[in-house]
Amino acid sequence: MIQRRIAPHRRSAAMHGDTRTAHRRRFPKAFFQKIIPSFQRGQLKFIPLGGCGEVMRSMYIYEYEDDIVIIDMGLQFPQEDMPGIDFLIPNVEYLKPRKKNIRGIIITHGHYDHMGAIPYLLDPLGNPPIYTLALTRGMILKKQDDFPHLPRPKIEVVTTESRLKLGQIDVEFFHVNHNIPDSMGIVLKTPAGTAVHTGDFKFDHHPVNERPADIPRLSAIGKSGVLLLVSESTDAEMPGHQISESDVQRSLEEIFKEARGRIIAATFSSLLTRIQQLIWLTEKYDRKIIIEGHSMKQTVEISRELGYLKIKKGTLITAKDIDRFPDGRIVIACTGAQGEDHAVLMRIANSEHKTIAIKPTDSIIFSSSVIPGNEATVQRLKDVLYKKAAKVYHYASMDIHAGGHAKRDELAQMIQLVKPKFFIPIHGNYFMLKLHAELAEETGIPRQNIMIAEDGDIIAMNREEIKKLKEKAPVDYVMVDGLGVGDIKEVVLRDRQHLAEDGIFVIIAIVDAKTGKMRTSPDIISRGFIYLKESQHLLKEVRLKTKTIVEEITVGGSHPINWTYIKDELREKIGQFLFTKTQRRPMVLPVVIEV
Amino acid sequence: MIQRRIAPHRRSAAMHGDTRTAHRRRFPKAFFQKIIPSFQRGQLKFIPLGGCGEVMRSMYIYEYEDDIVIIDMGLQFPQEDMPGIDFLIPNVEYLKPRKKNIRGIIITHGHYDHMGAIPYLLDPLGNPPIYTLALTRGMILKKQDDFPHLPRPKIEVVTTESRLKLGQIDVEFFHVNHNIPDSMGIVLKTPAGTAVHTGDFKFDHHPVNERPADIPRLSAIGKSGVLLLVSESTDAEMPGHQISESDVQRSLEEIFKEARGRIIAATFSSLLTRIQQLIWLTEKYDRKIIIEGHSMKQTVEISRELGYLKIKKGTLITAKDIDRFPDGRIVIACTGAQGEDHAVLMRIANSEHKTIAIKPTDSIIFSSSVIPGNEATVQRLKDVLYKKAAKVYHYASMDIHAGGHAKRDELAQMIQLVKPKFFIPIHGNYFMLKLHAELAEETGIPRQNIMIAEDGDIIAMNREEIKKLKEKAPVDYVMVDGLGVGDIKEVVLRDRQHLAEDGIFVIIAIVDAKTGKMRTSPDIISRGFIYLKESQHLLKEVRLKTKTIVEEITVGGSHPINWTYIKDELREKIGQFLFTKTQRRPMVLPVVIEV
Repeated sequence: MIQRRIAPHRRSAAMHGDTRTAHRRRFPKAFFQKIIPSFQRGQLKFIPLGGCGEVMRSMYIYEYEDDIVIIDMGLQFPQEDMPGIDFLIPNVEYLKPRKKNIRGIIITHGHYDHMGAIPYLLDPLGNPPIYTLALTRGMILKKQDDFPHLPRPKIEVVTTESRLKLGQIDVEFFHVNHNIPDSMGIVLKTPAGTAVHTGDFKFDHHPVNERPADIPRLSAIGKSGVLLLVSESTDAEMPGHQISESDVQRSLEEIFKEARGRIIAATFSSLLTRIQQLIWLTEKYDRKIIIEGHSMKQTVEISRELGYLKIKKGTLITAKDIDRFPDGRIVIACTGAQGEDHAVLMRIANSEHKTIAIKPTDSIIFSSSVIPGNEATVQRLKDVLYKKAAKVYHYASMDIHAGGHAKRDELAQMIQLVKPKFFIPIHGNYFMLKLHAELAEETGIPRQNIMIAEDGDIIAMNREEIKKLKEKAPVDYVMVDGLGVGDIKEVVLRDRQHLAEDGIFVIIAIVDAKTGKMRTSPDIISRGFIYLKESQHLLKEVRLKTKTIVEEITVGGSHPINWTYIKDELREKIGQFLFTKTQRRPMVLPVVIEV
Repeated sequence: MIQRRIAPHRRSAAMHGDTRTAHRRRFPKAFFQKIIPSFQRGQLKFIPLGGCGEVMRSMYIYEYEDDIVIIDMGLQFPQEDMPGIDFLIPNVEYLKPRKKNIRGIIITHGHYDHMGAIPYLLDPLGNPPIYTLALTRGMILKKQDDFPHLPRPKIEVVTTESRLKLGQIDVEFFHVNHNIPDSMGIVLKTPAGTAVHTGDFKFDHHPVNERPADIPRLSAIGKSGVLLLVSESTDAEMPGHQISESDVQRSLEEIFKEARGRIIAATFSSLLTRIQQLIWLTEKYDRKIIIEGHSMKQTVEISRELGYLKIKKGTLITAKDIDRFPDGRIVIACTGAQGEDHAVLMRIANSEHKTIAIKPTDSIIFSSSVIPGNEATVQRLKDVLYKKAAKVYHYASMDIHAGGHAKRDELAQMIQLVKPKFFIPIHGNYFMLKLHAELAEETGIPRQNIMIAEDGDIIAMNREEIKKLKEKAPVDYVMVDGLGVGDIKEVVLRDRQHLAEDGIFVIIAIVDAKTGKMRTSPDIISRGFIYLKESQHLLKEVRLKTKTIVEEITVGGSHPINWTYIKDELREKIGQFLFTKTQRRPMVLPVVIEV
């Protein structure tokens, strides 16, 4: 049996569990204008503006006296109770009065949850320089193309061998594995001690298209003495070790060996490692590959230009050439493994794609994990594909996807390599951070040296102790909706939720100022409430009721007429009447016009 | 990295993948008034009105000549693109002209997705008699209490030893395991052959509080010759065998042994097996149990009355007595393991419960699987609990929950026991049905004897062959919203989705009929679009634009004035203007009044 107690769109308040505690702090403005009282020189501060409470919106501040280094500037996709919102970006109120202290922004890798907020935040922060690896720079500049009115960001390309001096903070880098090349961790050497920031990482001993994470270097860093390790927690609940990309490659190859018809492989557009694997297999099995989906095409183009993607001449064809080759020689790599609305796989499945439709001989590969919350949608997409295609391969039943994140064994290994005095887990929901903190304790870090930070917390430390200040950085949500950044307030969202539930009911009453009588029968406009064509009787009752409510006040009543009172009465009484009749509560908007 | 390409509320079209193909068939009314042309006497027909395409809304018709037996009458919780909808019920248009043929309704067990639509459908179908086991009868009557204006349904209690004669169809039953007692499968003996309908089932060799599924009986049925097996598919993707409730009991006991403070266990209100286990452990470890949540309280009351729940005197206490016992002697069983909005666990977690708040010494048990689509919500609930409680036990990391459904080994065993000639998988998304069909083929059923039916399909068979008729039963969604059953049409849902995305923008223009000039500056009412207080400039521009658009047509223009044209112009031009300024598309509703 399945018993779902609530409708999915009503799950919204669920998230208030954490938002109420974490995101609704408000602070007097004056607080940010001056140096906060407990500031002490000689301390290193760590302040997450995002990423500590969610697996997205990464943005972390390292502050030593008058020097600030920012790591990552990512965005977050909205939650279920934020209809119409495109995404959330970090709140940078803490940084605004400290603009002049920002020495640079370091981006760990080219995924949107780590660099997608740059176009929105760079200018408000005074356009500080960005330091990152070459591919990540390409991805940032690509994204910037969508904002032609903004100046090009200043990006200095580094390598993992580079060294930077950002004020009093010396910065070095180390190579890690993830599922996009050019992912790195950061070493920040401050007078208070050394901090190591992992970025998103895994340890793949047999990666494809790149070298294994630089474990000898991490070991050396550990030996040199580390004050603080800040490590990602996405898979802190997962036991064991992430499977290697070589294993994924082998499983994918099984499919290539078996498939007689076309192979359609869906994954994230930014999962470059997987795309490279598909290209190699395409070449090995004498097929041609079509890349479908705007963002995937862009990613492929940039990484090819920069030499991150190896692809032989003639391997890549376009969708319009698809008929020049037999089905057994075609591979289609595309977006849409999450069941996204307008992504390629969904359009192909629903026969809405210009040139490609599912054939009963196709083999479909879902090569990405399912993001929590998308499961029902992916199930429905699977339904369509199982109906139309020969074979559907899903990561749940076959090793055709490896996540980009360290599982528990790797997380423990990171701690053991770096041997930090203090430990802060980041990049996770609270429960992931907590599990990661418990893991750190198991590996031998004393409990008092482990700090679970939430967005906005200010963690200060010196060589002796680490503590959470009672002051907080503001982290109220900043929502992006169309061209508006931060202009959507909670009241607007609440209205949207209300409108979605039961719709709107507008009553227009025109009243003769002299007689107090209604000029005509009131007009009613309603959307999303009931099917008007079949509700004429109800509407008639509402019109009569409106007339009665209005004229009881206006005809022969006291003057001047209290128009606000009339509106309130209409809103309440008509609302109550509609609820009695339908058990629905549309938003009632009375318009009373005096002529 | 996590890359979510679309906002969750925008995933709506995802489901059109299947709905378009499965749920939008329309038929001439005449078709249902007469016997469908291909009808042949001597055939057994199987028609799913729900449950073949989703794991809910179970309702299956078995029709032999003039005799119809209905199995189950369940509801479905709505999908993400159905805001405000309470649930969906089966479409019974096929049955309405055949009312007089309905010999009875058999309910397999007491879960809402199998009996929740009874209050809505019994009367429209002429109140046929219901046959079911004692506990299920209790659950149906309990639900009926919410509909005091309806007559009490006629329910005849059967046992698994009963035999019924429903027209030409002889009916027998067999005991299966599920996660509520009194779950049964059905044997329908028709002149065309015998059909076996499993209902929701699993084979638990060591169940708690009931006997194992009646495998000897199934074996005997199989030996007597079975034409058709109709078997549930919920876990057709899951390899192996469902873990036994005895194992779950042992894992739960580990938690009872360890916990020093209170134990708070959340599960489905109807998961009686789990509730019984908690009660036994409560008694064994000298604790007291509090049942919280209206529906769980009701279930406990009914099953206790009927003797299905064993509970010693004094074990059960109420929330107001909680302070009379030390924390180490308290167990709280409650609803809310799915992160549902107003369920008990959520209220406790958010400190919104009257008497119970989380203590740092509490142990929390999530003892239910997560329904696809609820994962993100459950993650956020876990965040709150990890923050506040001592220990959180989740079914993913410990065997503290067993599903109620047969996994692949059990599904294969069912086929091998029953040895049917024909096979139809039910109770699943399409991909589950397909996987179950493939499994049946692996167990030796010839491919041509396996039929994947979708809702509305009419499958006819005799002893020689099985086929899908080209006629279909209508299965357009019937939505329940408040008091309305089936009155919400697609246009209403589309409006709700539109309103949720970008809100509404009402413009009220009052025009002097004589001069064609606007009387006053137009009024604007907007909800869910922008934060009006900070958008005065935009509103001013809209007012000016409105005046221009209207007066261009009314002042000195041709008479009579085309008011519809004015409204169309306002809708389009103001809509376009707002989009240019904000990249949002609120629903624009112009009201033009001539005075």
